[in-house]
Amino acid sequence: MNKKLELIEELESSVRSYVRSFPTVFTKARGYKMWDEDGKEYIDFFSGAGALNYGHNEPAMKKKLVDYILEDGVAHSLDMATDAKVAFMEKFRDVIMKPRDMDYKIMFPGPTGTNTVESALKIARKMTGRTDIVSFTNGFHGMTIGALSVTGNSMKRKGAGIPLNNTVTMPYDTFVEDEVDTLDYFERFLDDNGSGVAIPAAVIFETVQGEGGINAASIEWMQRLERICRDWGIVLIVDDVQAGVGRTGTFFSFEPAGIKPDVVCLSKSIGGYGLPLAITLIKPELDQWKPGEHNGTFRGNNMAFVTATEALTYWEDPNFEKSIQEKSETVKNFLEDMVAKYPEMKGFRKGRGLMQGISSDIEGFSEKVAEHAFERQMIMETAGGHDQVFKLFPPINIDEEGLQAGLEVLELSIQDALESMNLKEKETAK
Amino acid sequence: MNKKLELIEELESSVRSYVRSFPTVFTKARGYKMWDEDGKEYIDFFSGAGALNYGHNEPAMKKKLVDYILEDGVAHSLDMATDAKVAFMEKFRDVIMKPRDMDYKIMFPGPTGTNTVESALKIARKMTGRTDIVSFTNGFHGMTIGALSVTGNSMKRKGAGIPLNNTVTMPYDTFVEDEVDTLDYFERFLDDNGSGVAIPAAVIFETVQGEGGINAASIEWMQRLERICRDWGIVLIVDDVQAGVGRTGTFFSFEPAGIKPDVVCLSKSIGGYGLPLAITLIKPELDQWKPGEHNGTFRGNNMAFVTATEALTYWEDPNFEKSIQEKSETVKNFLEDMVAKYPEMKGFRKGRGLMQGISSDIEGFSEKVAEHAFERQMIMETAGGHDQVFKLFPPINIDEEGLQAGLEVLELSIQDALESMNLKEKETAK
Amino acid sequence: MNKKLELIEELESSVRSYVRSFPTVFTKARGYKMWDEDGKEYIDFFSGAGALNYGHNEPAMKKKLVDYILEDGVAHSLDMATDAKVAFMEKFRDVIMKPRDMDYKIMFPGPTGTNTVESALKIARKMTGRTDIVSFTNGFHGMTIGALSVTGNSMKRKGAGIPLNNTVTMPYDTFVEDEVDTLDYFERFLDDNGSGVAIPAAVIFETVQGEGGINAASIEWMQRLERICRDWGIVLIVDDVQAGVGRTGTFFSFEPAGIKPDVVCLSKSIGGYGLPLAITLIKPELDQWKPGEHNGTFRGNNMAFVTATEALTYWEDPNFEKSIQEKSETVKNFLEDMVAKYPEMKGFRKGRGLMQGISSDIEGFSEKVAEHAFERQMIMETAGGHDQVFKLFPPINIDEEGLQAGLEVLELSIQDALESMNLKEKETAK
Amino acid sequence: MNKKLELIEELESSVRSYVRSFPTVFTKARGYKMWDEDGKEYIDFFSGAGALNYGHNEPAMKKKLVDYILEDGVAHSLDMATDAKVAFMEKFRDVIMKPRDMDYKIMFPGPTGTNTVESALKIARKMTGRTDIVSFTNGFHGMTIGALSVTGNSMKRKGAGIPLNNTVTMPYDTFVEDEVDTLDYFERFLDDNGSGVAIPAAVIFETVQGEGGINAASIEWMQRLERICRDWGIVLIVDDVQAGVGRTGTFFSFEPAGIKPDVVCLSKSIGGYGLPLAITLIKPELDQWKPGEHNGTFRGNNMAFVTATEALTYWEDPNFEKSIQEKSETVKNFLEDMVAKYPEMKGFRKGRGLMQGISSDIEGFSEKVAEHAFERQMIMETAGGHDQVFKLFPPINIDEEGLQAGLEVLELSIQDALESMNLKEKETAK
Repeated sequence: MNKKLELIEELESSVRSYVRSFPTVFTKARGYKMWDEDGKEYIDFFSGAGALNYGHNEPAMKKKLVDYILEDGVAHSLDMATDAKVAFMEKFRDVIMKPRDMDYKIMFPGPTGTNTVESALKIARKMTGRTDIVSFTNGFHGMTIGALSVTGNSMKRKGAGIPLNNTVTMPYDTFVEDEVDTLDYFERFLDDNGSGVAIPAAVIFETVQGEGGINAASIEWMQRLERICRDWGIVLIVDDVQAGVGRTGTFFSFEPAGIKPDVVCLSKSIGGYGLPLAITLIKPELDQWKPGEHNGTFRGNNMAFVTATEALTYWEDPNFEKSIQEKSETVKNFLEDMVAKYPEMKGFRKGRGLMQGISSDIEGFSEKVAEHAFERQMIMETAGGHDQVFKLFPPINIDEEGLQAGLEVLELSIQDALESMNLKEKETAK
Repeated sequence: MNKKLELIEELESSVRSYVRSFPTVFTKARGYKMWDEDGKEYIDFFSGAGALNYGHNEPAMKKKLVDYILEDGVAHSLDMATDAKVAFMEKFRDVIMKPRDMDYKIMFPGPTGTNTVESALKIARKMTGRTDIVSFTNGFHGMTIGALSVTGNSMKRKGAGIPLNNTVTMPYDTFVEDEVDTLDYFERFLDDNGSGVAIPAAVIFETVQGEGGINAASIEWMQRLERICRDWGIVLIVDDVQAGVGRTGTFFSFEPAGIKPDVVCLSKSIGGYGLPLAITLIKPELDQWKPGEHNGTFRGNNMAFVTATEALTYWEDPNFEKSIQEKSETVKNFLEDMVAKYPEMKGFRKGRGLMQGISSDIEGFSEKVAEHAFERQMIMETAGGHDQVFKLFPPINIDEEGLQAGLEVLELSIQDALESMNLKEKETAK
Repeated sequence: MNKKLELIEELESSVRSYVRSFPTVFTKARGYKMWDEDGKEYIDFFSGAGALNYGHNEPAMKKKLVDYILEDGVAHSLDMATDAKVAFMEKFRDVIMKPRDMDYKIMFPGPTGTNTVESALKIARKMTGRTDIVSFTNGFHGMTIGALSVTGNSMKRKGAGIPLNNTVTMPYDTFVEDEVDTLDYFERFLDDNGSGVAIPAAVIFETVQGEGGINAASIEWMQRLERICRDWGIVLIVDDVQAGVGRTGTFFSFEPAGIKPDVVCLSKSIGGYGLPLAITLIKPELDQWKPGEHNGTFRGNNMAFVTATEALTYWEDPNFEKSIQEKSETVKNFLEDMVAKYPEMKGFRKGRGLMQGISSDIEGFSEKVAEHAFERQMIMETAGGHDQVFKLFPPINIDEEGLQAGLEVLELSIQDALESMNLKEKETAK
Repeated sequence: MNKKLELIEELESSVRSYVRSFPTVFTKARGYKMWDEDGKEYIDFFSGAGALNYGHNEPAMKKKLVDYILEDGVAHSLDMATDAKVAFMEKFRDVIMKPRDMDYKIMFPGPTGTNTVESALKIARKMTGRTDIVSFTNGFHGMTIGALSVTGNSMKRKGAGIPLNNTVTMPYDTFVEDEVDTLDYFERFLDDNGSGVAIPAAVIFETVQGEGGINAASIEWMQRLERICRDWGIVLIVDDVQAGVGRTGTFFSFEPAGIKPDVVCLSKSIGGYGLPLAITLIKPELDQWKPGEHNGTFRGNNMAFVTATEALTYWEDPNFEKSIQEKSETVKNFLEDMVAKYPEMKGFRKGRGLMQGISSDIEGFSEKVAEHAFERQMIMETAGGHDQVFKLFPPINIDEEGLQAGLEVLELSIQDALESMNLKEKETAK
């Protein structure tokens, strides 16, 4: 092992994880490419788990950022007013909210996904006077106790060291069986006053569950969920931290369903450049916080405001969404080809937009694909409770050439995995 | 009101707070100075609530940061290895831990104070198998449910919307009466198996409570607290998010007490430049996390690594701590002078290092001082449950001239407050 | 209103309830009959909500009880040994456990249903080291916080004034839709480690939910539930407080399913004469209590031991169960006749054994039936979250004549209700 | 071991406890005497842990009870009205409440101490909308989760298997040090809005802590506690389950302090004869229960109503309280004599009324005294977290002869203990 990785072993907590899957030291990055200290070039189809939707070091943002720093722009401002912050809010209103006929207050809850989720749960509980939050199986919302309470993963939940309470887990779309509408189940619990499940303060959900296994809710399911929330006076929270900011083909992932959440959580790619930023969008009538009732030191990360503002420029172009959707179609077709071409991996395609993957019924297969991809200098990840899905997260602004390059490596990696797991030959024999 | 502040009113959540105290739009900053859009210059004795201990846009860090960006250094890396991250860890070991004979694993728990606190509570509960955490009156540890549970402030606690459980609040040093050792109380609860208070997983405390009112624990109290933890097998956590990184005169605020916490939480100024970063230092024997048991998207904020690494250079100079301590002495003397010179404010000095202030028994007085200071173009804040303390947080590397300039404005602001509250004249009449 | 009822209005808490449905002052009772202070005779088809399965003041028990008191038998003994207690345990072993091939330790947890449930939950949590309990929709287990946490009724749950935690509610048999096996849901939640539902310490359920609406679980459902518990190492608790002691036709209500619960809760009719008594049966390997870890002042209610022991004599006769089953069949046929004969009440039969009723889809109908029955001097009750079921709880040792008398009054009351709600004429018109 | 004790070993849960301290089988009892199956006579200075304040099988109650049963009085009535219940309420009003100028609603919450405590906590939370309850170190309130949450004993708390939440433990009178007024702590926590302790729904306390070590609060402490509750709008609950019904010399134990609790919990001796009964007294303005919001099968234990009513006859005689107080004085003098006469036991007297004992600083001494007492055919118990107190609970209507007989045995048992622990001779040698 090299010196630097040894130093990590010596000094870094055992909690570290991605460095174990991608054991090299990265030094440089641009667009969909990364380079390690030996100059080896990697294709990055992981995109910072969705925090780098525009790729690494996007040139326009980079320029604005360097200029801002060189001019001694304010770096850190808590929630004082700065030019950079006001510019971001204005552009977010004009480029994102107005064209979508949206009216939200913008809250800066601290610069991470878990922070925006915690703020969303708080305001929902405060405004309803109720305590329970309904979340869904295989949801992933964060690692702090409030957000972890609505997260499904049992290993992460146990990490809390205390019972996680004031939440109820309902089955996500298709959780039980394909024929069953899982919202029947939810509604039955609400209807019956002897069900043991109180009317919750809020429902929180992801339209596509990234960590949970690239599970995509159907349009109808989301629409019915919204109706249920309206009928019962439940605050509807969409956690769009990972699926938002274009990842599924529209700025907000819920746009195709035509729903209007009461609260929207954004983080990851909202900063544009991979810098920590999170915002909570709250319907004005719900925004009844007292000043400072929720706060945080890094609410005012101005460098992130600068790059976030520049990133919104992409959305001024009406063709941008279309281009993501076209690439999504390419990925979809490619993955369905793979499923058909390699039946021995017992796979099926999952997901939406540039948040797709293949779930394999063969234990360990998807992990194997990701391992071989890394050998072939591509970075990609698995998802799901048993790592049963290998998933593609290319930048949403990737060019055709880059996308094809990645897909080619992926097919080779599938072949590698079939071979190394002795699945290919068996199949051939057949 | 100007256009930009109107836009904030229109778009930003009602939770915003500092913009209400400092209603102007800042555009530039350097060292202890800030400028607003009209070019007005402000003295900043607030320092980002302790996140800007080295002042704004420190030149050496700025250079490294710009170079890094220009070279397409990796901006965002989750917990993959990067050059920037390894360099930080190595320098932290060599400059901070080794000379202090410290041996800790470094965890990157997500880039905010509340995140490091949540990770500390988790590992303490996991390693002890116990659920309760003991925190102290007027402690402040963060806004996410886990950290909020150990935070004293009742307004913030109510914001949770749920009962905050699995914690016990003990009286901080001098909370009850000056003559009482509050640890007698704590120890009595531990000793008696009918006390209703279980042996906790951990004790978490700040050596100087910044938000809680600039309350400084005595050396003896801290030492006794450590002994109690050792005697009962309780994990000792120091939340050094605000008091650490030199704020009280040494890198870690607990150094003068000679105690060895099991876990140390750092954030705010650890990044050097005001960029989001947090680390959790964990004694190797406690560092039994499973890979990924706690994670977060912005663990790998490489720009913050770059500035954090450069910031550590300050600590290579043995005179640096001395210079902070000298300035602390200056502040101390100045504040005691103020108390003596203006008895009508019924004040007494509080705090340690460059984390001092005056608590006034006159309702509203301290807020008035801060208001007048802002009129005089100085930014400073109040603290305590009733905002009874006005506090000084100058950069720790401020020069003599800057320090004096600030103290002068402060004295004038005290005079202003006495006048505007009609306290001065009454006193004169006496 | 009479003097005594006025006095109740003046002095008794507003929490009182049955006195509102049955507003008279009772003075005497025997078998299935009660008399009020004016000498009016009532048929009691309520049986103390299942606490008077042998009817009022059963002569053989009465004799033993009076003799015991006259001989200065020990009345109250905590958990010291008394003759009366030992005699009960011995007979319970010989008459109940041995013939059924059961091996349990007998715990006396305090003399009420809620107490036996609390003790069951404690031992399950202690022995598994887990915190969650799975209960079922419309389950009813008691009013103290532990038992209330596993009770479904929302009005009662809100009465707690705190969130009720460490429990998960799963759908009882047929809760969602008739075609769905609700245990598919439960098993799916257990199977998926991202479901947000941890493997619970225990499952607690009633084989027939009395308060919840006379819902009877099918034999197959109970058997599958037991298998699930075995597969996952979950403690299986049957709360047989109401359905046990012969109410459904066998001593334990779960006997027809052939399942072997780990813990069985008994109270109500176990005392025989309506005297407070409860026992918790625990499989020997689970019975790892420390002495006194759960205690209570009235564990040793010796008068109840005396009547409980005598009551067991009924079970020495192999024909006793058969006779209950025959009467159950009579009730079943009668109720199905009613449903067919009076389609305008939109009813369907529910329940098992002498724990049956009719659920009416017409709002308020079932309550009306019970009201008219009381006018006709019969005491009977409604059940279910919307009081949609009128139910029959005659003594299990009632004679044919008594049973017929009650059923006749019931039919008349149904007719009364149809008439007073104008349902009969509408139907006739049709 | 005899057959019957063997049978208990075979069949009864390991949770049993008193049978281990008093290993014989009792068959008969009267007044302060009990007899075992071998005809051995015991002096009972334990009185069912306070449930037999009138001694065993008090003749007047016995007669009423037998008559009631023989006349087929209603045994079990839930909360329907019965003659026996109305008679009890009327006499309780006339004999107890009226002469003491008390106005309470009477709630029947289920027949055990833990039930009345749970109902008290519920109504306090409901009426205030707050969740926390303040209880005190070494308080004992019951074994169900709600009551256990306010109980101090760590072994019992751990028995819950879940964290016990929504409660805060404050130091009972003299808990910390003799000079400190522990209510200073409590008030300080309430005063400071950064204390982490919310204004609670209620305070619950015992005037003399029986299980916790016979700790008696001073009159001044109770009065100050009442004032604090009034000042902050906190519901004041006195748990008089053990100390009430004459045990300390007045009917309610708090009468000497002149305080007026909002809620009073009574059980144990309220039934008179050792039969399960509990009542919750609630100030009319707080009694806002919905019908059935708290219920229970054995609310209507009519035999207990009959004996409870008869027991109140004692309180019609103004000399009854005086006689208890005189006996209390006798016990007090005797115990102080013992302390003085046997300094080698390092004891000091504790308690009030007929609820007194000696706390010995010598580990194991008090248990030894109780053991030797049992050898000498006297039943008495220890108390406190380390069983450091041996306590006397004679019937409150015991005659002079009985009292002297018991005290004589006690002195001999002290001598036995000193001898068997080799303390006497050491002392003599001195």
